[in-house]
Amino acid sequence: MTATETLTPSATVERVRQLFNPKSIALIGATDKSHWSLSIYKNLIDGEFPGKVYLVNPRGIVVHGQQSYATVADLPEVVDLAFVMVGTGVVIEVMEQVADAGIRSAVVLTSGFGEVGEEGAALEARLVQLAEERGITVLGPNGNGYVNVASEITPYGLLLPGKLKKGSIGVVLQSGALASAVIQLAQTRNAGLSLLVSMGNESMVSMTDVMRYLVEDEATKVITLFIESIRHPEDFLEVSRMALAAGKPIVALKVGRSEGGARVAKAHTGSLVGDDSIIDAVFRQNAVIRVDSLEDLIVTSELLSHAAPLPGRRIGFVTPSGGACEVISDRAEDEGLLIPDFSAETEAKLAEVLPDFASGHNPIDVTGYILIDPLLPIKALDAIQDDPNIDEIVYVADLPHEVPPDFDAAVARYSLQGDAIKHAHKPVIVMSNTITDITPSGRAVAEATDFPGVVGGIHHGMTALGRAAEWSERYRAAIAAGAGATGGAGATGTPIAVDAAPGETFAERKAAALLAENGVPMVPNALVDSAEAAAEAAERFGYPVVVKLAADEIEHKSDIGGVRLGLADADAVRRAYDDVVAAGRGAGAANPTALVQPQRSGGVELIVGAVRDPKWGLVLAVGLGGVWVEVLKDSTLHLLPVDRAQIKKGLESLRGAKLLNGARGTEAADIDAIVDVVAGIADVALRLGDRLESLEVNPLLVRGSEIEALDALITWK
Amino acid sequence: MTATETLTPSATVERVRQLFNPKSIALIGATDKSHWSLSIYKNLIDGEFPGKVYLVNPRGIVVHGQQSYATVADLPEVVDLAFVMVGTGVVIEVMEQVADAGIRSAVVLTSGFGEVGEEGAALEARLVQLAEERGITVLGPNGNGYVNVASEITPYGLLLPGKLKKGSIGVVLQSGALASAVIQLAQTRNAGLSLLVSMGNESMVSMTDVMRYLVEDEATKVITLFIESIRHPEDFLEVSRMALAAGKPIVALKVGRSEGGARVAKAHTGSLVGDDSIIDAVFRQNAVIRVDSLEDLIVTSELLSHAAPLPGRRIGFVTPSGGACEVISDRAEDEGLLIPDFSAETEAKLAEVLPDFASGHNPIDVTGYILIDPLLPIKALDAIQDDPNIDEIVYVADLPHEVPPDFDAAVARYSLQGDAIKHAHKPVIVMSNTITDITPSGRAVAEATDFPGVVGGIHHGMTALGRAAEWSERYRAAIAAGAGATGGAGATGTPIAVDAAPGETFAERKAAALLAENGVPMVPNALVDSAEAAAEAAERFGYPVVVKLAADEIEHKSDIGGVRLGLADADAVRRAYDDVVAAGRGAGAANPTALVQPQRSGGVELIVGAVRDPKWGLVLAVGLGGVWVEVLKDSTLHLLPVDRAQIKKGLESLRGAKLLNGARGTEAADIDAIVDVVAGIADVALRLGDRLESLEVNPLLVRGSEIEALDALITWK
Repeated sequence: MTATETLTPSATVERVRQLFNPKSIALIGATDKSHWSLSIYKNLIDGEFPGKVYLVNPRGIVVHGQQSYATVADLPEVVDLAFVMVGTGVVIEVMEQVADAGIRSAVVLTSGFGEVGEEGAALEARLVQLAEERGITVLGPNGNGYVNVASEITPYGLLLPGKLKKGSIGVVLQSGALASAVIQLAQTRNAGLSLLVSMGNESMVSMTDVMRYLVEDEATKVITLFIESIRHPEDFLEVSRMALAAGKPIVALKVGRSEGGARVAKAHTGSLVGDDSIIDAVFRQNAVIRVDSLEDLIVTSELLSHAAPLPGRRIGFVTPSGGACEVISDRAEDEGLLIPDFSAETEAKLAEVLPDFASGHNPIDVTGYILIDPLLPIKALDAIQDDPNIDEIVYVADLPHEVPPDFDAAVARYSLQGDAIKHAHKPVIVMSNTITDITPSGRAVAEATDFPGVVGGIHHGMTALGRAAEWSERYRAAIAAGAGATGGAGATGTPIAVDAAPGETFAERKAAALLAENGVPMVPNALVDSAEAAAEAAERFGYPVVVKLAADEIEHKSDIGGVRLGLADADAVRRAYDDVVAAGRGAGAANPTALVQPQRSGGVELIVGAVRDPKWGLVLAVGLGGVWVEVLKDSTLHLLPVDRAQIKKGLESLRGAKLLNGARGTEAADIDAIVDVVAGIADVALRLGDRLESLEVNPLLVRGSEIEALDALITWK
Repeated sequence: MTATETLTPSATVERVRQLFNPKSIALIGATDKSHWSLSIYKNLIDGEFPGKVYLVNPRGIVVHGQQSYATVADLPEVVDLAFVMVGTGVVIEVMEQVADAGIRSAVVLTSGFGEVGEEGAALEARLVQLAEERGITVLGPNGNGYVNVASEITPYGLLLPGKLKKGSIGVVLQSGALASAVIQLAQTRNAGLSLLVSMGNESMVSMTDVMRYLVEDEATKVITLFIESIRHPEDFLEVSRMALAAGKPIVALKVGRSEGGARVAKAHTGSLVGDDSIIDAVFRQNAVIRVDSLEDLIVTSELLSHAAPLPGRRIGFVTPSGGACEVISDRAEDEGLLIPDFSAETEAKLAEVLPDFASGHNPIDVTGYILIDPLLPIKALDAIQDDPNIDEIVYVADLPHEVPPDFDAAVARYSLQGDAIKHAHKPVIVMSNTITDITPSGRAVAEATDFPGVVGGIHHGMTALGRAAEWSERYRAAIAAGAGATGGAGATGTPIAVDAAPGETFAERKAAALLAENGVPMVPNALVDSAEAAAEAAERFGYPVVVKLAADEIEHKSDIGGVRLGLADADAVRRAYDDVVAAGRGAGAANPTALVQPQRSGGVELIVGAVRDPKWGLVLAVGLGGVWVEVLKDSTLHLLPVDRAQIKKGLESLRGAKLLNGARGTEAADIDAIVDVVAGIADVALRLGDRLESLEVNPLLVRGSEIEALDALITWK
């Protein structure tokens, strides 16, 4: 309920709970001429809504075979929910009547608001103002409503394909029309839902409000999102952490990957930070599972709804086919899942039950002999269930697609399998070969035998398993740490006060001094005002050194001959001092002096930068410098603040990470030392406050455990 | 029929045609006790096999309700096909009877041959020998047979789910058990098959034999493969080219990606050439479409079966949902498909038919107004069908999943859509939102309205479209060139005779001389036997130069101080000569001299190497040198010979390709000049003949249009 910003989170949850749990509903604008009216009425009747449904039609006629009321005022009781589907022009008037009637929750299906332009947006603002003033909770406008599957409450404007299967997946969609596709997919995967909400314009109740409710909702175990835009970033971060702490995975399909694109900014960091790569970072840091397709959205949610958390990523596979084993092996590699060898004891047990020509290795192909002995897979399952090398078992099997010729025999066979799976000593995940529907025949057999859920095909199933394993690790880590994930909340540490003009840029000395004062290991430098002082500084640092013009008024010093590299002795330094100062004077500097620095060579260069995203706040980019960042954009992003573990994981995920491990004969870098410095830079960026626009250290030179920032740039808003 | 190597290709095709088109079949080993026997008999009867089915059972009893014959000899006619499912121990004896009875084709379902070890392999060899001697064409052993869907001939050992839909997809599988999953998936996609073959051990008829037949088979338009191993590489290449020339796409799921792994070899090239990356190169060069899942295998094949070749990759989309549009935009970017803006004329037409609040841009969301006007998508289709900016149209729609409440109204609606799609001025591809089954209800509506094929969901469908667009471009190029694709056939050009000992390595001078003689631009060098001669050579080349020890008996010259870099004047060169010769003598060289070369700097380094793969012959790897190849393995592979266009495309596909385009201020490379040199190196490798094990140029230095090989290494078998 972020539009108002006045309700506490718990009050918001309470109002959303009321919205989704009405005991009586008034359909306002009910008419036989409207598809929406027909559909929602049929949904409520066929869905066996246990409460009372009233119809409101200005003519007070019979609608859908039921007597209607001319206005809300005529209703015989104060209903819990108004479902508004009147013309755009009368929505405000109707909502006033709704308020007058004391109704506290409304779904506004009507479109023609913010989505159609300025005039509509103004109307939407009036709607919100009215709702706030009169204390009405509004879902929509321009949304199809919701299906509270758990409680059989279906004020939903598109016709449902019969009663939806009850389960523990809570679905929130920012697309109305795709909801039907998602519902159908869930039905064909036999995936049970707790709630499905079509958000509409989110003028009042937002996606994150619904998520917050779902975190508390006992019927919901998995939160499934179709996201076009995250409108309330801070809420999203907070709710994501709450969900992780509550052990409820969030699975999200975020569309619009190609939109936005990378920022162009003064600092290199800008080119590394794209809208979609920030979303990746946000999700990764907060254990939100990102998927790429509606199929993965539902298959992954369904798997998680009955198998999360997974004990680990070491899996024993029981399959009826060598081909399936090979597909599985390939996909396991893609998804970072492990197929360990069985223990000798397990292999001995398998040798007893499998035919001689079966290999008995993981993944197990019980072979075509399954046609002669249909219980072979159960025997294999029994043989491997105590193996210490595996965390869980995947059992490849399909429910019957057609009505089995001998239904009772099929039921008996599936019963035996179902029992073996349920009583196995390790979690067992049943996975079909492909994602073909679980048909009514399959569902009938599953229901008759209490057969477990069947994950939708090896291809999507292995993706789901990989994501589930990753989430489960994050969940266990969060539980162990006694806290949620990190990233993206307010600043930490003592603020650093800086006197910077609006739009000012701190380069070189000024940036370096600020960072050095705050604990960032900058390469030493000396500001000198004579050739002799330059030579003395160089002697102190050791050779070779660099001499740079120091003159704030000149931007591109190397262009005017203001930078001299590779100076190997005192004479060269003195000459360089005179040269750069002369060059500075020639270019109009009032009082040029020079900076002496030791010149470093070798090692690996990193770039570490933080830029402020208008939506997500400070985003830290860490990458390998030079060609890596310029050609490959090889970098990893984190929302700030970020913990050391995430920084480390990010470094290790770089494509060029091997360079840090001492590839090509370079000294292996001290990763922990790098993490210290990066964390320090991130900390300074946070402490510099809201006016910081960007802070970049480039390059950060890494030579073994010696980490030194060679240059820095800070820009201010 | 590669086991025999004696038949001509056309004779092979003829024998395979006979195998797949029998007019009478004997089931040998028929018994009520066997699942296989029951299944194949039921498949033949239910599938309405138009010919005669005889059962052979040694006891001559009634089997499957039909009188059997005790032996093949008793059959009243010479049947066209023997389906052998007797015990392993009697297969040879039975096959002798089959031969005696004059039967010319056999499927051997029985297992226990090569797949179970040495003894089985010996038995399989006997089987093959017998078949060859007696002129019998054998499919299997250890295979389930085949389904000739086009001709309703179903000698197939696993129970089929009723009659399969006829169509133009020919499926060849190297996995028996997965065939059932593939059949079910094809049925649920309403994808029609021409033939499905379960290969078994391929002891005689091989996958490539069947492919060769399918290229000629009129019923087949698309060849669909599940591959565990390509047993006859040269056949595969040849048949792939024939298929492309015939306009029949090959779609393949090749499993076992993780197997094998990269070669470890003396040359760097070895680490770039893995078994699976060779398969990628083979497929790419020969326009074989590689997919990653059974879902993509069938969805891509189905799309191609009715839409290949596609006119281009510029697509207009008509969808009923903004969410679908966003998913489509993301996926189009992944797959290299284009969603151009419509022309102004088209936008004007769209404005007339779409509601005011619809955007009318590509991809089109006709909006939820479709509920009020179900013909909106047709109107949009009509408005865009003449747009010059698009090549084809994707129309997002689902067939009904359940029986529609008003079947006739649904049929009328789908009929109108189907007509509009069929009569559109551009090809129209219908695509569903997700991959849920085309159910019997959907099939009934499609059949009643002659509705076009519906591609399986946006996710898999966009993959299929991308692959189809790519294949279509290759097909047009092949037609334009009047020939098939390139890669992997025999050597070209005049052989180069070289006197190399078995296992010998040509390094430095020797390799450089051989390459320079054959047109590869090597950096110049001078072999000198005095300090003075070294200085003279250096003066001639210009400074800086490199001086290297020349002594064949010493392998790692830099380790013993045998290499001096960056020599800037004659004195330095003289000293360096004396030093490296002394170092050589110290390390035991009999008669050390030295090599002088100009030292190059700047530019971009490439590595170009050819290694001989035992299966595929010479494989060329081209990559960016140094850190790119060592850390990223950034390279592209080609089977030799390869044409210039492919080499160029490969270069452009490198992740570091930007470096060649002048990123970071370097001079842009002359790509055509690089292609010339790479093609020249490939040509030399081919001309060096079968004893060449590897040939590597590393680095190949590129500075603008100046391309120079700095070092080379050649190894011999």
